[in-house]
Amino acid sequence: MQFASLDDIRAFCRDLARGDAGAAGAAARRQQVLTKPPGSLGRLEELAIWLACWQGRELPRLDHVAIAVFVANHGVVARGVSAYPPEVTAQMVANFAGGGAAINQIAKTAGAELRVVPIELDRPTHDLTVRSAMDEEEFLHAVDIGYRTVPERCDLLAVGEMGIANTTTAAMLCAALLGGGASRWVGRGTGVDDEGLARKRAAIEAALGFHRGILGDPLAVAAGLGGRELAAIAGAVLAARQRRTPVLLDGFVATAAVLPLVRLQSSILDHCRAGHVSAEAGHRALLREFRLDPLLDLGMRLGEASGAGLAILLLRAALACHNGMATFTEAGVSDRDG
Amino acid sequence: MQFASLDDIRAFCRDLARGDAGAAGAAARRQQVLTKPPGSLGRLEELAIWLACWQGRELPRLDHVAIAVFVANHGVVARGVSAYPPEVTAQMVANFAGGGAAINQIAKTAGAELRVVPIELDRPTHDLTVRSAMDEEEFLHAVDIGYRTVPERCDLLAVGEMGIANTTTAAMLCAALLGGGASRWVGRGTGVDDEGLARKRAAIEAALGFHRGILGDPLAVAAGLGGRELAAIAGAVLAARQRRTPVLLDGFVATAAVLPLVRLQSSILDHCRAGHVSAEAGHRALLREFRLDPLLDLGMRLGEASGAGLAILLLRAALACHNGMATFTEAGVSDRDG
Repeated sequence: MQFASLDDIRAFCRDLARGDAGAAGAAARRQQVLTKPPGSLGRLEELAIWLACWQGRELPRLDHVAIAVFVANHGVVARGVSAYPPEVTAQMVANFAGGGAAINQIAKTAGAELRVVPIELDRPTHDLTVRSAMDEEEFLHAVDIGYRTVPERCDLLAVGEMGIANTTTAAMLCAALLGGGASRWVGRGTGVDDEGLARKRAAIEAALGFHRGILGDPLAVAAGLGGRELAAIAGAVLAARQRRTPVLLDGFVATAAVLPLVRLQSSILDHCRAGHVSAEAGHRALLREFRLDPLLDLGMRLGEASGAGLAILLLRAALACHNGMATFTEAGVSDRDG
Repeated sequence: MQFASLDDIRAFCRDLARGDAGAAGAAARRQQVLTKPPGSLGRLEELAIWLACWQGRELPRLDHVAIAVFVANHGVVARGVSAYPPEVTAQMVANFAGGGAAINQIAKTAGAELRVVPIELDRPTHDLTVRSAMDEEEFLHAVDIGYRTVPERCDLLAVGEMGIANTTTAAMLCAALLGGGASRWVGRGTGVDDEGLARKRAAIEAALGFHRGILGDPLAVAAGLGGRELAAIAGAVLAARQRRTPVLLDGFVATAAVLPLVRLQSSILDHCRAGHVSAEAGHRALLREFRLDPLLDLGMRLGEASGAGLAILLLRAALACHNGMATFTEAGVSDRDG
C-alpha cells in the first residue's frame, strides 16, 4: 500500500511535487507571439500554460488522457436520502461496461480512456449517523485503489464518481470541515423531493452530532464520514500530483472528495482545475472556497466525471491553439501598433 | 441575388421557416428515458432537443459541420480605433489559408470545415462618421455572399468574422439600434489603450449624430453604419433559417451583426445559440437583450468564430449522449423511486 497510515498521507501532503516554472514561463512567452491579440484566447491560454507547467514542457501533449470513475455504496442510503434504490449503483457499473452511460459517450467524444473502478459494492460504508463510515484500514485501502488507478503514462486525468446516496456523503464532508450546517451543503442530488431533502439534512445533522469529537481532523473525517469512492478520488489526486499529471475535477462529490486534502495542505490542488460547476447546490460554494473557477457551467448534475470529461474537449482546443498556431513572424502578420 | 432590395429581406423575415415540433418532442421524450436522472445533463439535453427541432429528426447528426468566417475592412479605422493596422486583415486571411490562426486549430479539433470568405478587402466601407458605410447595393451584395456561403448539406453552422476595427462597427450598430450611448457598447477590442477607447466613443457619437435620420430603420442602419462581414453574417443566418440549419453565433461582432434582423423579427434567432460570451464589453449586454444564454464563458475576445467553434465540441458531446446512451429498459437499470 502507498500509505500505511493516515500519518503517511499527512507527510505526503507536506512535501508535494511542484510544477515546472521554466516550462510554464516558456509557454507563457509563446502565447505572447502567436497570431492573436495577447490574452484574446482567455482561459485557453491559461490552460495551455497550466498543462505546460505540470507536464514540464513548453509544448504539452494530450496523447494519453484518462477518465477515472470510482464507484461505491453508502450505508446512509438506509436513511431514505436518494430517489434511486441502492442496486442502481451496480446496475450502472454494468451500464458503464456495456457502453450505455453518458460518460461512455463523452469519453469517446473526448478521446479519453475510461477506467471504471467499482470498490466493494457489496460492502457499503456503515451508516454514518450511528457509527464510522469506514475504519482507518478500509479508508486507506480505498485511497490506495485510487492511487493505483492513475496510469503510468497519463497526460491528463479526469476524476469522477458514481454511488447512490453520495451527494449526502459529499455534503457531510463539507458540513463537517467547512461548517455552515447541513442546509448550506445539501441539494437534491439525483432529484429527491422535499421530504428526501429533509431526510438528507437530518442525516447530516445527526452525523455531525455523533462524530463531533473528530471534526478537527480532516483525515479522520474523510474516513468516518466519507465514502470509498471519495477516498479513491483523493488517492488518485495524490498519485497524479506525485507524477505531475494535471487533473480535471468533476462535480460536487468529486470536489468534496479532495476537501480533506485541502484542509491538510492548501496548495494540493495546484495541479487541478474544476471541469465544471454542477447544478448540485453546494458545488459553487465549495469551488469558491477552493478559489477554483470552473471551466463549464451547463447546469449538469450527473456525476460520472461527465463535466470533467466535457472539459477535456476545451483542453484539446487550448492545446491545439498553443501548439499549432503560427507566430506573428512565421505568418508575416504585423504586430500591434505596427 | 437572393435579395434584390431591403424590402425582400423584410418580407423574408415576416415568413420564417419553423422548427419541427414533432422531432423536438420525440427527442425530449428520449431524454427522459436515458440512463441518468431526468435533467441531469443540463444544457446538453436542451441542445440535443434544439438540434432535433431544427434538423427535423429525433436523432440529429453532426456529419457536416461548417464554420464560416467573413472578413472585411472598415473605413472607420482612419479614426484610430484599433491597436492594429488595417493591413492585418489581409495578412490574417493569408494566415487562415496557411492554417496558422486559432480558428484553424479549433476547426480541426471540432471536426468542422472552415470557410474563410474575404469580402472586397481592398474596398473598405466608407468612414461612417461622415457618410454611409455602404449603399444599399453594396449591403445587399455582402448579404448575398453570406447567404450563398451556407453549404447545401450542413448539419450545423458556426459564424464568425475578422476585420480590423470591426468592434467599433459592432458597437455602432448596438448604440444605433438599442441606445444607451457609445459608452454602453464600446470595449477595448483587440486591446486599444484609453486614448483609443476615447476615439472609438467619439467616432460612434459622431456617426450617431450624422445618421440620426435613419436610426429607426434597422436595415438602413445595417447598411449605413455596418460592415460587409456583418452583413454577410446576417445573410448566412437567413440562409440557415431557410434550410433549418442550426447556427452557433460567435462573439460581440457576430452577435451585433444579427441585431438588425432581430429588430425586424424577434423570433429570427430561434435556430441560433450563442457559442460563448466574449470578454468584449458589450457582448454580455447584447446577449441579455437577445435572451441568449451563452454556452461558454472563458474570457475569449478573438473573434474568428473561435468561441462558436469551441462550442461545436459541446454539441458533439450533447449529441453523442443523446444518440448513444442506453435507456433504463435497454440497460436493465432501475428507474427512480424503484
